[in-house]
Amino acid sequence: MSQLQEIGKRAKQTTQALARASTEAKNQALLLISEALIAEQSAILTANEQDLVNAKEKGISPSVIDRIRLTEARINDISTALQALTTLTDPIGTTLETFTRPNGLKIKKIAVPIGVVGIIYEARPNVTVDAASLCLKTGNAVILRGSSSAIHSNKAIVKVIQQALTDSELPRDSVQLIEDTRRETAEEMFRLNDYLDVLIPRGSKNLIDTVVKKSSVPVLETGAGNCHMYLDESADVEMAIELVINAKTQRPSVCNAIETVILHEDFLHAHGQQLINALKKHGVLLHGDEKAQMVDPSITLASVEDYETEYLDLELAIKTVKSTAEAIAHIHKYGTKHSEAIITNDENQANQFLTEVDAACVYHNASTRFTDGFEFGFGAEIGISTQKLHARGPMGLNALTSTKYLLYGNGQYKH
Amino acid sequence: MSQLQEIGKRAKQTTQALARASTEAKNQALLLISEALIAEQSAILTANEQDLVNAKEKGISPSVIDRIRLTEARINDISTALQALTTLTDPIGTTLETFTRPNGLKIKKIAVPIGVVGIIYEARPNVTVDAASLCLKTGNAVILRGSSSAIHSNKAIVKVIQQALTDSELPRDSVQLIEDTRRETAEEMFRLNDYLDVLIPRGSKNLIDTVVKKSSVPVLETGAGNCHMYLDESADVEMAIELVINAKTQRPSVCNAIETVILHEDFLHAHGQQLINALKKHGVLLHGDEKAQMVDPSITLASVEDYETEYLDLELAIKTVKSTAEAIAHIHKYGTKHSEAIITNDENQANQFLTEVDAACVYHNASTRFTDGFEFGFGAEIGISTQKLHARGPMGLNALTSTKYLLYGNGQYKH
Repeated sequence: MSQLQEIGKRAKQTTQALARASTEAKNQALLLISEALIAEQSAILTANEQDLVNAKEKGISPSVIDRIRLTEARINDISTALQALTTLTDPIGTTLETFTRPNGLKIKKIAVPIGVVGIIYEARPNVTVDAASLCLKTGNAVILRGSSSAIHSNKAIVKVIQQALTDSELPRDSVQLIEDTRRETAEEMFRLNDYLDVLIPRGSKNLIDTVVKKSSVPVLETGAGNCHMYLDESADVEMAIELVINAKTQRPSVCNAIETVILHEDFLHAHGQQLINALKKHGVLLHGDEKAQMVDPSITLASVEDYETEYLDLELAIKTVKSTAEAIAHIHKYGTKHSEAIITNDENQANQFLTEVDAACVYHNASTRFTDGFEFGFGAEIGISTQKLHARGPMGLNALTSTKYLLYGNGQYKH
Repeated sequence: MSQLQEIGKRAKQTTQALARASTEAKNQALLLISEALIAEQSAILTANEQDLVNAKEKGISPSVIDRIRLTEARINDISTALQALTTLTDPIGTTLETFTRPNGLKIKKIAVPIGVVGIIYEARPNVTVDAASLCLKTGNAVILRGSSSAIHSNKAIVKVIQQALTDSELPRDSVQLIEDTRRETAEEMFRLNDYLDVLIPRGSKNLIDTVVKKSSVPVLETGAGNCHMYLDESADVEMAIELVINAKTQRPSVCNAIETVILHEDFLHAHGQQLINALKKHGVLLHGDEKAQMVDPSITLASVEDYETEYLDLELAIKTVKSTAEAIAHIHKYGTKHSEAIITNDENQANQFLTEVDAACVYHNASTRFTDGFEFGFGAEIGISTQKLHARGPMGLNALTSTKYLLYGNGQYKH
């Protein structure tokens, strides 16, 4: 039995106790972890310092180093988030449906933990606590596999979590870390079907694509967002410009930011220059089609690559269309089914867009930046699913649950 | 572009029209197919005859040949099932949730089609119609990949379906068959992520395991059923024996039949002989542990393999335990998380069993044979999911749906 199988076996052995655990027991464990992270923060920061030194030696980029970095303030935030998690409703045990069959058999569908959740992620050691705590709250065991660049931090954090768990009613092995960060252990994790019920990649598109391609364990895919905002001819101009500016510039590096603005040609001709000026004022580099260039010749010509690209930066493509149908066709071709918006005062155009655009979240007259578990009011977020199965869009605690049918009879064996 | 990619592309091109299609349009298409199958039955039976001749030439087993065989009566049943499907509620467009955020943003979650569904299956040409019709009812495009042993039947059936679709409002390419049944096309289908949203294997454990292991497309897994019935010391003896006989002998070849009966030792000593006699009378071959053998020495000794085996035949293993906890531990070790039952008059034992057993369906005082889409009242069945994600237990039309969030604002970009 390999090291990973041993970890899987230990995780599986905790699932019965975790499924039975009361909401109080789970919340108490989260509070103990919250306290322990503060109490043990010097040990965590020392381990983190070692990761930072190693990262600098390896010439890792400053932005990645910033993701690895922990500070007293960041640990404090992480600890506070754990306390907030205890205030959320526990979905486990909730009755989702009940019905009675003609023969008197009563059928009840309830929410149960998934079982053992695998998380594979990069750099950020805060994901270690975040993922572990969401799994504990929902009665799932978790197997964490972070990157080598944060291994000292992750080991220190999981040590603190496991110590806190020994003081709780939950099993210590509810949270385990794969300490061997060689590629081989990731590959083995992808095929750990005997022990893992689901695998969730958190990080770059490259990581997610690799996991989707190679994993035989079911994957919860949190994909990229090549999001669009379509300004219809009847859009309120001031609202439209405010929303484009917000959706592009408030935080360009996130998946719910827009990457292309689609303009109805009448909007372009009437208000295009005003929009372009506002975007330029916010430092946005623009790539447009020929019609947009005619309005403002300083715009570079957009290529197919521009429409395909998730810039994740202060960069935006412009596409001009003659109709809502053409806007929808562009989105169908280039979108990643994440978040799409129409800005219009015409209800018919809005309805067509909301009905026909195939995406996790489709907006009328609002910014795409609301595609977020916290903005939805879930109080927690596992990620934003761009796949069609199990969960789509922002995933809160419910996404970490499965279901179970309970059937109550009095001797039934006939219809 | 390969032939399969062409098929995938054509399927994807139908998804917008299918998502828009009204319930009436979908039902009309189903009725047209229902009629066409009867009108064209001689062509279908001729093609089927060719499959049967080929199968006999290849020395394929009589039971598989029976699965390939179509008759007028069987086509009639298939046609009638299509009519029944039109009477079911269309889940597409249903509002599942609505909530309003403090900033006035209204969020609505609705049911939408998954998109393109791949079905990979064996022998039975009736699956061709069954799978296609369930997908059409839920606005999904379907790509079918049957086995070479039924290829002539499948081609004839899909020709009839596509002809009927050209007379309907739905696109002809909503239903397509992969006619090339070489192993390579299956392997390519497993990696057709650009066009397939989900892949559903229907058939043997071997087929399902291969798909789960090799597919990078998300899989809806319909697994094997190593199901148990536990007779607690307080069980009503007559009820317990009736339920064991039903769950084992009514149709031994199905996944919701039981493979092991677990007896509390007090039940064994008081009523074991009566149970064993009843099972023998029904021709059931018994394998038991030593305690069971002491009650009836004619029982062969059960090995670990017996407890692991899904007999799918008139064969049953017996395990004796001292407590409900021990019964649960046995199920945890050998069960496939399909259907598990406790027969008891003690509510505490029942609650413990229902809470702690991890399976899609957990029963108190009823036969496991009710784990079935039709028995649940769904009116249709895609299969019985033994996985934890998306759907668990009997899957009706809802399992072929995804969700989409619609967000209605009036300019919101702040919390």
